[in-house]
Amino acid sequence: MHETFTIATSGPGLYEFTDEVARWVARAEGGEGVLTLFVRHTSCSLLIQENADPEVQTDLSVWLGKLVPPSDDPSMSYLTHTYEGPDDMPAHIKAAILPVSLSVPVLGGCMALGTWQGIYLFEHRRRPHRREVVAMLR
Amino acid sequence: MHETFTIATSGPGLYEFTDEVARWVARAEGGEGVLTLFVRHTSCSLLIQENADPEVQTDLSVWLGKLVPPSDDPSMSYLTHTYEGPDDMPAHIKAAILPVSLSVPVLGGCMALGTWQGIYLFEHRRRPHRREVVAMLR
Amino acid sequence: MHETFTIATSGPGLYEFTDEVARWVARAEGGEGVLTLFVRHTSCSLLIQENADPEVQTDLSVWLGKLVPPSDDPSMSYLTHTYEGPDDMPAHIKAAILPVSLSVPVLGGCMALGTWQGIYLFEHRRRPHRREVVAMLR
Repeated sequence: MHETFTIATSGPGLYEFTDEVARWVARAEGGEGVLTLFVRHTSCSLLIQENADPEVQTDLSVWLGKLVPPSDDPSMSYLTHTYEGPDDMPAHIKAAILPVSLSVPVLGGCMALGTWQGIYLFEHRRRPHRREVVAMLR
Repeated sequence: MHETFTIATSGPGLYEFTDEVARWVARAEGGEGVLTLFVRHTSCSLLIQENADPEVQTDLSVWLGKLVPPSDDPSMSYLTHTYEGPDDMPAHIKAAILPVSLSVPVLGGCMALGTWQGIYLFEHRRRPHRREVVAMLR
Repeated sequence: MHETFTIATSGPGLYEFTDEVARWVARAEGGEGVLTLFVRHTSCSLLIQENADPEVQTDLSVWLGKLVPPSDDPSMSYLTHTYEGPDDMPAHIKAAILPVSLSVPVLGGCMALGTWQGIYLFEHRRRPHRREVVAMLR
């Protein structure tokens, strides 16, 4: 069983879609399996993170922005792939060190997430995008 | 077939549990499949790393601690999620850039690990914890 | 169904093998499933990245080399695992923060990759290596 989730983004940051995935998993027949999530882009990521305190998401985004500054920052002057905008090459770098795919066990028709775990699309680009995440339950 | 492994941790670092997983995989019927490991927390990680020389694990921990210092380090003064202790928000950041899930092919009843690959729970918090890892073999 | 891909590398950088995987997936019976890729080493990585502009791959390698310099760089003088060469411990660190396994949905006999996504072996060592990637389609 498979599905494509489309997530509209409006700038860098985390967009939670745990509930949409959970509802789709609950509708599936058969209670046990593995959910695979796969994002079809190279400038955003998937992430499982704490979903209790929104400060965690903000701090994570700020930290990542300091680790990988925009390409017009003097510290990044060695970058050569700059013609798609100052946020493009940093977005590819962030997409390399954060997950493109996630595998989540499903037990009794529910994802085996911990109490504080939410599923996020992590957008790295500044302009609005529509991001596709393919879900497969086997 | 699924199982939950519980790993007791006593501070930051790598805790190997390759043998426990290998024994469980060996007991499963059917020789071929994919093992999914999933950690149900947002302040520790799973990791496959060299298991020959313990210096590798120490160096890796030290490097990660320099990349993501505690929130009471002056360089991290921008962090806002600090009320759970100076090691909490850095633990979430480390958990974002290291794996929450691993997928390991199983052939002939054995994980297809390379000669030097071990499976670790990577603890990022200072206090003792009991960490749950869900394993699914399909 | 499983296969082992062997990738010969000649120094640090990204080696694409999308086409080899795609051809193997296309030969498989049954059109829907999940492809698991797993690299059997601790000093190289798997990566899905943009495959349009080679500058992206170069910039990514340079950035990663600055994040994790060789162990004979003064900034890395705290490393203890140095007897296998200045590129060895940094290779383990890079292998920790980049994927060891990838899960890609397969639909209609094709991987559900986005338009610009390619599959790479990311070599972190300087000397030539032969790297094994186990593929499992279920």
